[in-house]
Amino acid sequence: MKEQANILNGVIMKILIIGGKGTIGKKVSEHLSKKHEIVIGGRNSGDVSVDIADSQSIKRMFESIGNVDAVICIAGEAKWAAFDSMTEKDFYIGLNSKLMGQVNLVRIGQNYLNSGGSFTLTTGILADHPVALTTSAAMVNGGIHSFVKAASLELKNGIRINVVSSGLVEDAVQQYGTYFPGHNPIPMRKVINGYVKSVEGKGTGEIIRMYDNC
Amino acid sequence: MKEQANILNGVIMKILIIGGKGTIGKKVSEHLSKKHEIVIGGRNSGDVSVDIADSQSIKRMFESIGNVDAVICIAGEAKWAAFDSMTEKDFYIGLNSKLMGQVNLVRIGQNYLNSGGSFTLTTGILADHPVALTTSAAMVNGGIHSFVKAASLELKNGIRINVVSSGLVEDAVQQYGTYFPGHNPIPMRKVINGYVKSVEGKGTGEIIRMYDNC
Repeated sequence: MKEQANILNGVIMKILIIGGKGTIGKKVSEHLSKKHEIVIGGRNSGDVSVDIADSQSIKRMFESIGNVDAVICIAGEAKWAAFDSMTEKDFYIGLNSKLMGQVNLVRIGQNYLNSGGSFTLTTGILADHPVALTTSAAMVNGGIHSFVKAASLELKNGIRINVVSSGLVEDAVQQYGTYFPGHNPIPMRKVINGYVKSVEGKGTGEIIRMYDNC
Repeated sequence: MKEQANILNGVIMKILIIGGKGTIGKKVSEHLSKKHEIVIGGRNSGDVSVDIADSQSIKRMFESIGNVDAVICIAGEAKWAAFDSMTEKDFYIGLNSKLMGQVNLVRIGQNYLNSGGSFTLTTGILADHPVALTTSAAMVNGGIHSFVKAASLELKNGIRINVVSSGLVEDAVQQYGTYFPGHNPIPMRKVINGYVKSVEGKGTGEIIRMYDNC
């Protein structure tokens, strides 16, 4: 019952962060590591290797690290392109990676979470306020929002699930700013707080939105 | 310019209704046929054969019927089952059919719509208010909502796109009522009006929600 007690007291949790070396992931990992034990999963970096687009890889990862108290996923890709240039195959990039990758992480991971543990997935403002070129990315994000609400009704052993959906984060403005005309950048400290709220809070089925001008 | 004029005057349109023989589809077809020319597409019934889960079948359908003023889709399936019993493959039933089937209909159909024409897709209340057993169905519906918003930003030639999301319709209560505890059935005349609003109205990127107690 050690893990259960730890969660209840909000003290040390063992947290798996997939994509923990990315733009957002590295800041979230850094923040949470002050208080918790962090295991970082990634395709090419981190403590454990995982490609979320491959469900066998997800299974191997959990077999390798064992039970955890929380899983955070800040990984997954989707193709950005003009709608009239998108092929059927292009749409499946996002479906197989960012959408089913996160679903499979929950589907498989529910067997490796300690009682009272949590999943925190990641989407983004496109689910609610898409911009041009994002028919696939928006679709994937919207699908995850509804999945999280539905899964929260069924997860057992007090396991919670939430999703953080942020506007364009300030650290990504230089790379992606031109795709988001007029969007106010979201400070990284607010984005980090989205993950903290999900992991250390008690909510479930929540879409934790951090938008700023819509 | 005949088709364009017809749309602008709100008189006769050539409307393709996929799933036009289903529970909702037959009522929508019946209503719209009073004023418009209706072509019904279906897997096993209707005027033209189509399986939306197969993009080649969608292409053949459009090649066979030629240009239309409006496409309504009230078709597509997704597996309902307990989350902890759902396999990865089970999720792909909904992704290939109700999700990508509708996306492919728009992706391919945009080349067969007359200027100023419209797409009307179908989801349901699960996108916003899921019930047990619907992790896949909810996900698919939520994905379509965001896709419609994103596609509306990019469709050309004045082509519009909306989606009708209804609560449990009264005609389906006997079959599905027990899955929706406490849900107020939605009268069929309201659901029909959702499709009329999309096809004969001027809106685009709209999620036309008809819910009643949430």
